[in-house]
Amino acid sequence: MAVINSAAPTVRDVARLAGVSAGTVSKVLNGRGQLREQTRARVQDAASKLGFRPNHLARSLVEGRTYTVGLLTSDRFGRFSMPLIEGIEDSLGAGRILTLLCDGRGDPLRERHYLTELLNRRVDGLVLTGRRTDPRPSVGPLPIPLVYVLSPSDNVRELSLTYDELQGSELAISHLLAMGRKRIAYVGGKPRHQSTRSRLEGSQRALAAAGVTLPSTDVLIGDWSEAWGRTAATMLAGRPAAERADGVFCASDQIARGLVDGLHEAGVSVPEEVSVVGFDNWDVMVEASQPTLTSVDPHLSTLGRLAASRLLAAIDGGHLGSGVVPQPCDLVVRQSSFPG
Amino acid sequence: MAVINSAAPTVRDVARLAGVSAGTVSKVLNGRGQLREQTRARVQDAASKLGFRPNHLARSLVEGRTYTVGLLTSDRFGRFSMPLIEGIEDSLGAGRILTLLCDGRGDPLRERHYLTELLNRRVDGLVLTGRRTDPRPSVGPLPIPLVYVLSPSDNVRELSLTYDELQGSELAISHLLAMGRKRIAYVGGKPRHQSTRSRLEGSQRALAAAGVTLPSTDVLIGDWSEAWGRTAATMLAGRPAAERADGVFCASDQIARGLVDGLHEAGVSVPEEVSVVGFDNWDVMVEASQPTLTSVDPHLSTLGRLAASRLLAAIDGGHLGSGVVPQPCDLVVRQSSFPG
Repeated sequence: MAVINSAAPTVRDVARLAGVSAGTVSKVLNGRGQLREQTRARVQDAASKLGFRPNHLARSLVEGRTYTVGLLTSDRFGRFSMPLIEGIEDSLGAGRILTLLCDGRGDPLRERHYLTELLNRRVDGLVLTGRRTDPRPSVGPLPIPLVYVLSPSDNVRELSLTYDELQGSELAISHLLAMGRKRIAYVGGKPRHQSTRSRLEGSQRALAAAGVTLPSTDVLIGDWSEAWGRTAATMLAGRPAAERADGVFCASDQIARGLVDGLHEAGVSVPEEVSVVGFDNWDVMVEASQPTLTSVDPHLSTLGRLAASRLLAAIDGGHLGSGVVPQPCDLVVRQSSFPG
Repeated sequence: MAVINSAAPTVRDVARLAGVSAGTVSKVLNGRGQLREQTRARVQDAASKLGFRPNHLARSLVEGRTYTVGLLTSDRFGRFSMPLIEGIEDSLGAGRILTLLCDGRGDPLRERHYLTELLNRRVDGLVLTGRRTDPRPSVGPLPIPLVYVLSPSDNVRELSLTYDELQGSELAISHLLAMGRKRIAYVGGKPRHQSTRSRLEGSQRALAAAGVTLPSTDVLIGDWSEAWGRTAATMLAGRPAAERADGVFCASDQIARGLVDGLHEAGVSVPEEVSVVGFDNWDVMVEASQPTLTSVDPHLSTLGRLAASRLLAAIDGGHLGSGVVPQPCDLVVRQSSFPG
């Protein structure tokens, strides 16, 4: 099916109706040249009457840019990519740039295919996102500007924007200490994930700075699920009260919610006996948990917006920069951490 | 920044290296004309050596199609749009078509802006999605094929694909009756949403077919949250055992999870005393609930794939069809409904 069919009005049709040359129509529609206001108005009127639509393809060929950016996710669309994509689309849309969305699904062949396709289509820039903070293989060098978001590139000469897991974890621990908690436990997700390790490292750093030790028995590593949170609660609640943590930092809100439920089942009250802090500030979890969850917010939507605006600046000829640039997290305090 | 820079190899460069004419190169790269296998191989070899990239824009101008489809969401990217988008992208990608993603955010002006932008960019077709099953205003007629997914168009001459809420609700009720439940309650979401009404209608229909009445006191309408599910549980559990429902169909998994927790708190056991069924089959909710939730699966990803394949067929010249075409749901049975 031909989209540009013979019935579609052309520049010539507009010129004929306005009583001017095709060159004049072109000048008006592209906002170039010195023309009388009256001529301009007549051309615009004719274009509007005929339902003339400027051909974006032709403009792209002439200008050498397509006002299109490729967005290649390294993983299926999930909870983490949604707010990122929202932020990216928001920022690009404000720059009148549209987003070509490709789902690589963590399959290098599929990713390579999409990359070729995006380059053939002459996108002005590229954003690569993933759902984990583990570094991912570089796809560069490319002839266009390129930004990685959330999952950083393994090539430090490229620009990667992530949230600062260390700083976010330090916020969580500092808050637990400020609530008067003396013995802090850490409950992490899957052991091989960067986030499990970084959030532990941030916790250790903040505790060391406060002169508090984190005994290895208070580091529980398992999975990202509520079920694992409940299991961890059973392990913590089973200890004698004197050896039990009174503050727990969980590496995700799902873990934290499961932990809160598990402690409740075991007869340990949150936040009276134990303060709990989660990570992600995922509304579905933090609001439904009883009590509601204090959580670290990684501001994923802001991260997406920032990445897109850095990319836009580079497309317009600015300097892109390089390296992994971590963005600060915030702590949102709710009932689960505040003993009152 | 010009993407097509002077350093990029051209068809002429390839022709020179291969020792053939530019016309021959063009024939090889477009798979046209009668050529010797040896010539074909020599051209492909030269193109590969030079890193020649065919200009997709030029091809689009010649062929009159861009191998691009616009995807306009009427609402922010959420839990319901992501599986839809995944299905759409998957199906289009298999047809070597890329997706231009635009987020209208339910703002008619923003939507109109994106629509103009997509038409100017000569997309081959358009998919419109929303997060609710309420009908949405038509954006047609358009000069390109157009499919609505999940949120149907208010113009029946256009094609809309949705899941069958009535049939899905009938499945839930039939299952509760098959589990030996005699008195069924319905807990709906926000009163003004189509889904709240349709799922009630489906329930009433299935109960009427089985000769069971649904007393108005057993219809509780409120919100889509876990908090509302807990409130509804308190209302149901507060009644004398003889007047209490022994089966509850909830219009979402979040409501169902809150209801299960609330019944537990009130000392009513699920599934021994009350069977509970949810809607959405959202893994985060159905797996974490204790007991795990039986739920209606609307197969959103399949819906997205189907919509994209119908659109592809129409782009290739096939008949698009019209009207609201509901797709069947399935019931996934877990612990919450099976009294054993």
